[in-house]
Amino acid sequence: MQIIEGGVTAAAGYQAIGIAAGIKKGKKDMAMLYSQVPCQVAGTFTTNVVKAAPVKWDREIVRGSGRARAVVMNSGIANACTGAEGLRCCEETAEKAAGLLGIQKNQVLVASTGVIGQELPMDVINKGFETMVPMLSDTAGAGTLAAEAIMTTDTVKKEIAVQVTLGGNVVTIGGMSKGSGMIHPNMCTMLAFVTTDAAISGEMLQRALSSDVKDTYNMISVDGDTSTNDTCLLFANGLAGNPEIREDNEDYREFCRGLNFVNTWLAKHMAADGEGATALFEVKVVGAQDKEQAVTLAKSVITSNLVKTAICGHDANWGRILCAMGYSGASFDPERVDLYFESSAGKLKIIEDGVATDYSEEQATQILSQKEITALIDVKMGQEQATAWGCDLTHEYVNINADYRS
Amino acid sequence: MQIIEGGVTAAAGYQAIGIAAGIKKGKKDMAMLYSQVPCQVAGTFTTNVVKAAPVKWDREIVRGSGRARAVVMNSGIANACTGAEGLRCCEETAEKAAGLLGIQKNQVLVASTGVIGQELPMDVINKGFETMVPMLSDTAGAGTLAAEAIMTTDTVKKEIAVQVTLGGNVVTIGGMSKGSGMIHPNMCTMLAFVTTDAAISGEMLQRALSSDVKDTYNMISVDGDTSTNDTCLLFANGLAGNPEIREDNEDYREFCRGLNFVNTWLAKHMAADGEGATALFEVKVVGAQDKEQAVTLAKSVITSNLVKTAICGHDANWGRILCAMGYSGASFDPERVDLYFESSAGKLKIIEDGVATDYSEEQATQILSQKEITALIDVKMGQEQATAWGCDLTHEYVNINADYRS
Repeated sequence: MQIIEGGVTAAAGYQAIGIAAGIKKGKKDMAMLYSQVPCQVAGTFTTNVVKAAPVKWDREIVRGSGRARAVVMNSGIANACTGAEGLRCCEETAEKAAGLLGIQKNQVLVASTGVIGQELPMDVINKGFETMVPMLSDTAGAGTLAAEAIMTTDTVKKEIAVQVTLGGNVVTIGGMSKGSGMIHPNMCTMLAFVTTDAAISGEMLQRALSSDVKDTYNMISVDGDTSTNDTCLLFANGLAGNPEIREDNEDYREFCRGLNFVNTWLAKHMAADGEGATALFEVKVVGAQDKEQAVTLAKSVITSNLVKTAICGHDANWGRILCAMGYSGASFDPERVDLYFESSAGKLKIIEDGVATDYSEEQATQILSQKEITALIDVKMGQEQATAWGCDLTHEYVNINADYRS
Repeated sequence: MQIIEGGVTAAAGYQAIGIAAGIKKGKKDMAMLYSQVPCQVAGTFTTNVVKAAPVKWDREIVRGSGRARAVVMNSGIANACTGAEGLRCCEETAEKAAGLLGIQKNQVLVASTGVIGQELPMDVINKGFETMVPMLSDTAGAGTLAAEAIMTTDTVKKEIAVQVTLGGNVVTIGGMSKGSGMIHPNMCTMLAFVTTDAAISGEMLQRALSSDVKDTYNMISVDGDTSTNDTCLLFANGLAGNPEIREDNEDYREFCRGLNFVNTWLAKHMAADGEGATALFEVKVVGAQDKEQAVTLAKSVITSNLVKTAICGHDANWGRILCAMGYSGASFDPERVDLYFESSAGKLKIIEDGVATDYSEEQATQILSQKEITALIDVKMGQEQATAWGCDLTHEYVNINADYRS
């Protein structure tokens, strides 16, 4: 597997673009992704009972034909809690884009992120399509414009691409995502779009995605709030010419490794760029008796406000980590737990068998003052493990969210 | 029922005191509560798997004899995650206090709050008892000293007392508590101590408490973190001379009404005084099909960081409320939900049937700028309801918790 330049346009046959259509003042706010040939499409969506209209629209297509050629996005208005009118807007959006692209409306997926409850300005959006369709391009730069146009409170664009070799053919997998706030995926969060030129059946594509999101997007949390709009879409157009993947064989597993790399990279970068974050905080639980226990413990620690503020203060307040494990719902023996803090500044054992070691607070503070910090927790019950990613809770998170709509 | 002055010393036969023993620098940090005659004692404790040593000590006594005469408290060190040494410190603490009081060590309950993982300075604590025992007093002022001595990041003391009439006898119920951070009770949170001179059997006393904490302490949240030390103790010494309550009769129900008033008052004041809070935020869910649904929805909204930061910004960002209901795990129809904001500045319908009304943002901001704010949510599925209390998430919360140990 090799990392290459680019994002959603890295694989053969994909075009993209992003523009400032005028939904948000002075910022890019609309994007399109288009495949020159029909694609298999897999998707995972929010499990929130309150689902945004675009989630409902996309789910119909993914679970129905499982085939699409385009996705259109806006980052100004979420089109959630908008009732029947919201769904009508999705259909009109898809219809307008489809007309300009010369395809069917049920081949166009729709994704939105932004303020909940407001209605889409359809005139601005329709005008946006007229601007975008002639600009669609397969260059890396066009993919980057799309990655920038889906950002809300994100501070950096997130795109990545890798190549794997399947049956002698080089296959590319590239993706982009946006995260930042209301990030606590349950199924898959935020907006993420991954494209590949691999030839793979719809069934195996969905299986690869559904399995992978559990270890990637579903393992990050910025604030514990599971969004109404979480959407992850994976397109495969077959242009790489590899023997089509139809079963769980070596090619499938290699494809999954590439997909996992792309999704993990996007997920970690979403956590690191969480609203107001100054550090990426990784929690790795090892020695668990089963996967579920490891996941429950890691996610409880990554979500704790008290742990997150301690990380903000570079404070080795390990009691809060044990406390968050304790209320997670998973059972374990607190008096067997070992805990280490680790970063580019070193690795330090903080707790052994549930009690503090004689560690140096100064050294701990130095380790916790880096941009990427890991808490390694060994519960000594078995062989399973899980890793979750989050960030610190800062003043800036409060600033951003106390004023989001103003 | 009548509200009277005082707290834990309001009922007949109780003495208390609080002092600055030197565990914390320049602040009151130790307290005692003592009954002149033996009491029935009921208790509820944290459900966190990581339980502080004092929780283990108290649970033994409450579930064992169910009788006690004193509780000793410190607010500097939580004595959690301290292993076998922590339990030994509890026993030594109880023994020392018992010796000075002339009672048995298994009649002395122990409560701690503060930093997790550090060991108790037993010499300071033993010296504290020698200072406190001669100072014990049944005055309101002594009760207030105890209420002040259990505070950590609390900014105001919390004490309340009421009187009810049972079988022609005036019975007093008084309490004190501390909360502020790591507040998300599951069973009962923080430290709360309630005393009464009612005559009531141990069984009915525990039943009254266990039932009431579900609607009071268990319905507040400051930060979603369920503490390792949550303890609520209820003492009854029978000195009021009422016919002993032994069954679910009118006297029992009147006693429960008084207890509920005291516990609700203490719980709400803990929420309002949450770390960094500028407002008490009440979420009332009505029209639920069962109690569990109402509780789940109300607690999910009260715990959401995004809702809490919106309240901090006086922003009627109602989409975040619907979103938090959506990921709560309770099922409901988002397109039937009505939502009102209410405070001393008025009442405003914000959502009707899941869609925004044509409300005035200016009026909403005014309502949300008061010190006590209610979100009233009608899910229109049945007759059940629940109320939860929390607070806004502010810069000050981050300040307090990034630097807690320094």
